[in-house]
Amino acid sequence: MEFTLDKSYEILERTPAVLQSLLTGVSDEWSMSNEGPDTFSPYDVVGHLIHGEKTDWPGRIAMILEDGVSKTFVPYDRFAMFEESKGKTLNQLLAEFEAVRKEKLQWLKSLKLTEEDLNKKGLHPSFGEVTLRQLLSTWVVHDLTHIAQITRVMAKQYKEATGPWAEFFRILNF
Amino acid sequence: MEFTLDKSYEILERTPAVLQSLLTGVSDEWSMSNEGPDTFSPYDVVGHLIHGEKTDWPGRIAMILEDGVSKTFVPYDRFAMFEESKGKTLNQLLAEFEAVRKEKLQWLKSLKLTEEDLNKKGLHPSFGEVTLRQLLSTWVVHDLTHIAQITRVMAKQYKEATGPWAEFFRILNF
Repeated sequence: MEFTLDKSYEILERTPAVLQSLLTGVSDEWSMSNEGPDTFSPYDVVGHLIHGEKTDWPGRIAMILEDGVSKTFVPYDRFAMFEESKGKTLNQLLAEFEAVRKEKLQWLKSLKLTEEDLNKKGLHPSFGEVTLRQLLSTWVVHDLTHIAQITRVMAKQYKEATGPWAEFFRILNF
Repeated sequence: MEFTLDKSYEILERTPAVLQSLLTGVSDEWSMSNEGPDTFSPYDVVGHLIHGEKTDWPGRIAMILEDGVSKTFVPYDRFAMFEESKGKTLNQLLAEFEAVRKEKLQWLKSLKLTEEDLNKKGLHPSFGEVTLRQLLSTWVVHDLTHIAQITRVMAKQYKEATGPWAEFFRILNF
């Protein structure tokens, strides 16, 4: 499937509503449990998405457009949300994500990106030159894989309860 | 996490809305693409969920309560939706799933299941005796893993577009 801005907005615009329908009002056992040491709960993932929105995705887009390959992206802090989410409820985080996503997409649309812009390059700290098109595709994939992660983490909480069925679900053993 | 009816309803009741927020109005390229031969598209998965709702989950619940281990469950037909979904739009399937899920949960609640009921057993064609509690847990897990599957399948459509980032996402290689 070829990247287009329109197909990317389709996903980026709906993620806050997907997370709200999935998580608003669920018991803490569903939202606060993780997959074991050093893994994320659904609550953690929402905080991670907010952090990415505030620092990484728009920051890297701006760097590609303004600095090209003359500066390297700041590495993504995958654990920043443990501090930033402190004291906030899940519902607060869901509302915060909705607001910041809306703001960033308005900004992105205001750039009126051309095909030429999408071919512009930046420097990733691990794998060197990447295009704006690749970065925007990754933003979409990042949303989708984190929804997959949240539902997998939730499913795992009932793994023991399913008894012999657990072996039928490849995802429970991922 | 221990099984309870209330925590199970929390998930079973919200799945139709999650699927609607995820899929209503997306381009066919997102909803009709799969992971390769003999795999499901998001459209196929919604049809699969409808089929399960009409034939498998409530049927097996009723068999446990009425027949116990004297009869074996009918094996789940994992491909029935290829025929049953024919000619239907994704939006029609999403609405159908919402309606049938609502109806089946009303029926389930009307049974006023007791702890004793939850311990009752049925006969699974592959692994023998299972309890009603295990069956209901599996219904919940089945919902969640299929949402995970849908978002994984969608993410994979942009795998090539992400360029070097693809290697960072374990789920893209699942």
